Amino acid sequence: MSSTRKAFAASRIVTCDEARATSGDPLGAVANGAVVLEAGKIAWVGPRQELDPAVPVTDLGNAVVTPGLVDAHTHLAWAGSRHGEYAVRMAGGDYEAIAKAGGGIVSTFRAVSEASHEELRALLTARLRRVAQLGVTTCEVKSGYGLLPEHELKQLRVIASCANEADLPGIVPTFLALHALPPEARTDRAGYVRRVIDELLPRVKEENLATYVDAYLDANAFQIDEGRALGERARSFGFQLRLHVGQFADIGGAELAAELGAHSVDHLEAVGDAGIAALHEAGTHAVLLPIASFTLKQAPPPVAKLRAAGVPLVVASDANPGTAPSESLPLALALAVRNYDVTPEEALLGATRLAARSLGLNDRGALRAGAAADLVVWDLPHEHAIVQPWGTPRTRLVLRNGAAISGTL
Amino acid sequence: MSSTRKAFAASRIVTCDEARATSGDPLGAVANGAVVLEAGKIAWVGPRQELDPAVPVTDLGNAVVTPGLVDAHTHLAWAGSRHGEYAVRMAGGDYEAIAKAGGGIVSTFRAVSEASHEELRALLTARLRRVAQLGVTTCEVKSGYGLLPEHELKQLRVIASCANEADLPGIVPTFLALHALPPEARTDRAGYVRRVIDELLPRVKEENLATYVDAYLDANAFQIDEGRALGERARSFGFQLRLHVGQFADIGGAELAAELGAHSVDHLEAVGDAGIAALHEAGTHAVLLPIASFTLKQAPPPVAKLRAAGVPLVVASDANPGTAPSESLPLALALAVRNYDVTPEEALLGATRLAARSLGLNDRGALRAGAAADLVVWDLPHEHAIVQPWGTPRTRLVLRNGAAISGTL
Ligand SMILES: [Zn+2]
Ligand SMILES: [Zn+2]
Repeated sequence: MSSTRKAFAASRIVTCDEARATSGDPLGAVANGAVVLEAGKIAWVGPRQELDPAVPVTDLGNAVVTPGLVDAHTHLAWAGSRHGEYAVRMAGGDYEAIAKAGGGIVSTFRAVSEASHEELRALLTARLRRVAQLGVTTCEVKSGYGLLPEHELKQLRVIASCANEADLPGIVPTFLALHALPPEARTDRAGYVRRVIDELLPRVKEENLATYVDAYLDANAFQIDEGRALGERARSFGFQLRLHVGQFADIGGAELAAELGAHSVDHLEAVGDAGIAALHEAGTHAVLLPIASFTLKQAPPPVAKLRAAGVPLVVASDANPGTAPSESLPLALALAVRNYDVTPEEALLGATRLAARSLGLNDRGALRAGAAADLVVWDLPHEHAIVQPWGTPRTRLVLRNGAAISGTL
Repeated sequence: MSSTRKAFAASRIVTCDEARATSGDPLGAVANGAVVLEAGKIAWVGPRQELDPAVPVTDLGNAVVTPGLVDAHTHLAWAGSRHGEYAVRMAGGDYEAIAKAGGGIVSTFRAVSEASHEELRALLTARLRRVAQLGVTTCEVKSGYGLLPEHELKQLRVIASCANEADLPGIVPTFLALHALPPEARTDRAGYVRRVIDELLPRVKEENLATYVDAYLDANAFQIDEGRALGERARSFGFQLRLHVGQFADIGGAELAAELGAHSVDHLEAVGDAGIAALHEAGTHAVLLPIASFTLKQAPPPVAKLRAAGVPLVVASDANPGTAPSESLPLALALAVRNYDVTPEEALLGATRLAARSLGLNDRGALRAGAAADLVVWDLPHEHAIVQPWGTPRTRLVLRNGAAISGTL
């Protein structure tokens, strides 16, 4: 039976398994541990001296093995570049100056509209290969740059076309239904929202293009009643929800998310106490996006209050060309630790088990028997080193379902 | 004659050549430009339509070509890891807590002492390969973790052994003569400094192991009189100087550097007006190290005053295991732009022409006829995109002396 099994041994097997977590070690690390893989799954995890001697073992020595990272919030299927906007923003420019520099979401909307399926797919594939090198084995990827139905469906089909490639990270597709008003819809906002809900949403369902539905709720974006109308219809179709909430203003998005049973609320720089209480009550995940607040020069979300309320904390990249021009979940972890006072352990759980759970993936994000064999061998001696600001991949090997998507041994 | 020449054409040839700089474009970019390489040097740069039609040309399309990046301040030849110290620091811990967590420079001193020449060389080589992927074609590398003569010489010999590998970035070796007091010398500080100057410095000269000599001058480090004694002797041997100055306190290090004709003063979080005036007077380069102040949660150096005084600004990684656990010069540029209000143009000049000049390398850091063919082809459409916080290499091809040290076309 052992012929199809193989094991890795390393000085630190950081399981992120809730069953192994203790108050002193919330990551459930096994020192001098081993993990056994079989048929794309994890068959066993434990101390090396208890490893079945019949299993062939690769000794990684002084190395850390963690679950594959899960990036729970990305907009990776973009085209174009908003470097001009970034430079203006860094120089303290306002929205008008950014628009003048050719920036803003409309420029991405145009670039995605003009890109062919093949061009967009090549861009997304290249990014997924790079994030695999960074240790990411599962990515949520949102649409939301098509805006008009044909381009939104194109973007979703591109995302779907990358979702089952064995050599890429896995994808959880999200239909970001309400992201921005396309210029064409400025004179008929209500009509635009209605068409998204009544026409586009059923198409997305029909073609089975998304697991999640998302909306960008904020003072200068979509409003609570629009979010509720979308969310209720989406739930009736069987979609789950994740929502952009409180990036700039608290308009009650967290309360709405709780009411609708959303799996996550993302951003939260401006969530208030009532919203936090509602999230706790509903068991909603808070997805922190520190690369966005770095780019926007914003103060952190109320992390201490979220923690005190027992809201599960997820950290994600928010990879997008405007407000988070990065592809690095490890950089997001470094910024969460440095700028948000998130502990290294919280950051790592928020990029593994809790990120997976926020995406409804209970068989990923932890190293435990029965889970998918998604794991990262880091070229680092301890899990705390992962959250240092390396700025470059520090992985040796990244496995998804037991197969290498980056690196070799 | 054209058989040994080849050209690259791209939408942006960002020369960083002073002769092409204008007030509107300090980077001297040539739109739709070409660069001709011959025998490891740049033979010609200009608009593509003026390119000699006899030269075979590779069209890079919508891409940026810049000079190879020059990292003017690194401690890349380290061993060990200080992840425990980093976690304590992020949690607000003080020096005592850091020492308790096994951190501090003494832990690197121990790890470097215990590492063999071969082990240290393998670590440095792996790091140099990674920085090459990030676009770095020349690295200053300091010693300073040996502390005791035999280990300091070992570290310098390791650095020297990597300095002429054609597939690695070039190295400018610096003897960081006064970095920290080894525990063995705590009872005889004056004797330690004297032995460094009278015994170790001549050995370093004899073996030709360094171009620069450096000292860490600060309130809790080495003092002005110690720096002067070292600097004067080093100059008498023909070494040039670069000095760690004003990281925490202004003890007059900038004035000393100006007096000694140092090529650079590095850190400067705490430099005062008199020091800035002295730097301007002497033409000394200010090397900004934003990853260190990120890690140490420090306020930025007085960049506006340095700029107003006309002090040339260089940006470097400070790559080291304690206060800048990173290897990424591009991340340093992103942090300089975000946290130091350095413009994208200043950041890029500070990582190319001015960085090279601060290292005495006048044939690198700019794309101009006669310079070394060190260049980076970025997988980005504009030079402003280079300073975005990617957190991962965004290069397609990195050439040093005309040969690829990372990537392929
Ligand atoms: Zn987002
Ligand atoms: Zn330094």
